[in-house]
Amino acid sequence: MKSYTEYLWFQTKKEREFINITSKAVEILDKSRVQEGMMLVSAMHITAGVYVNDAEDGLIHDIEEWLDGLAPAGVDYRHHRTGETNGDAHLKNLLIGHQVILPITQGKLDLGPWQQVYYAEFDGQRRKRVIVKVIGE
Amino acid sequence: MKSYTEYLWFQTKKEREFINITSKAVEILDKSRVQEGMMLVSAMHITAGVYVNDAEDGLIHDIEEWLDGLAPAGVDYRHHRTGETNGDAHLKNLLIGHQVILPITQGKLDLGPWQQVYYAEFDGQRRKRVIVKVIGE
Amino acid sequence: MKSYTEYLWFQTKKEREFINITSKAVEILDKSRVQEGMMLVSAMHITAGVYVNDAEDGLIHDIEEWLDGLAPAGVDYRHHRTGETNGDAHLKNLLIGHQVILPITQGKLDLGPWQQVYYAEFDGQRRKRVIVKVIGE
Repeated sequence: MKSYTEYLWFQTKKEREFINITSKAVEILDKSRVQEGMMLVSAMHITAGVYVNDAEDGLIHDIEEWLDGLAPAGVDYRHHRTGETNGDAHLKNLLIGHQVILPITQGKLDLGPWQQVYYAEFDGQRRKRVIVKVIGE
Repeated sequence: MKSYTEYLWFQTKKEREFINITSKAVEILDKSRVQEGMMLVSAMHITAGVYVNDAEDGLIHDIEEWLDGLAPAGVDYRHHRTGETNGDAHLKNLLIGHQVILPITQGKLDLGPWQQVYYAEFDGQRRKRVIVKVIGE
Repeated sequence: MKSYTEYLWFQTKKEREFINITSKAVEILDKSRVQEGMMLVSAMHITAGVYVNDAEDGLIHDIEEWLDGLAPAGVDYRHHRTGETNGDAHLKNLLIGHQVILPITQGKLDLGPWQQVYYAEFDGQRRKRVIVKVIGE
């Protein structure tokens, strides 16, 4: 079994950003030389998400509004008694998920035609990380 | 390490359907001859889900209603400015998730007594795919 | 490829409980002797979740309230016509997810500084299980 690991670093300008990381995942797969296996793409923070969906700006806007409707900012979360103000970012992380597995077949990411991998920052403007780990053969 | 990959194709009659694919997963596991490892079951589309829960018709009805309550159709999503009408299907995909990992132990899917694997179609009536990839030994 | 499997058993005193299982995961990793790979932590029930987030009591309270807001108890779910009363627990399982993959690097769980693994019981007071399966080398 082969394995290969890299970390992607982010420091977003805005508190919330959606960043397409599909091409980064492809680069890492190429370096891994894995032909058959799985790639884990997983946020190392509890206020950011990783998901697979469409690279369409309108939809990304819809996703952001939807997350904010179901896990709203501006609520008096009990977590805020610690001095934090990012309770909603934790819930958004849980809602959209913090990790995906990308299948690898014949040396390629085996994704559908519209599947793109996104990093979703919910509490940005500081350095944060995603681990990308490939296992296979 | 062994690996084995198959694709399941769906063309549902209705726009939304919930299809139990557990027996398909078992067949693929048998063909893979993997004894210990993991099986990824992952929708290759961004308007369909894959999840694990109960094979009980009432619950499936509840799940469909619940998804429609939290990610409703009939909303003026910005995504629809592209001409699409399936914004809710994208959000339902994000809510329920598009993939699961099934553990494999001693040549069997190591699931609990009520755990069944479902394909959840949210924008059907056309050909769509799920990848099933087994890795292990 | 190496693989190693253990099961964690739970019998909570209350119907709902959130239990930090990170140290259990570390113990299992040590026994597996895997240096590079992935650990699947997956509830074997359809009314319990496994997720990664903060070990902060206020936040855990927020998560419980949030889940109850989006997947409420006390609703006349169709699932209840079977005699069950735990429809909300099924939906909470789907919302928060029933499994995570923990990356393993240089013999350690490769988690961010605040990432802790939780078992979330939504229908407890009886024996329930989580499978922990490590694969790697």
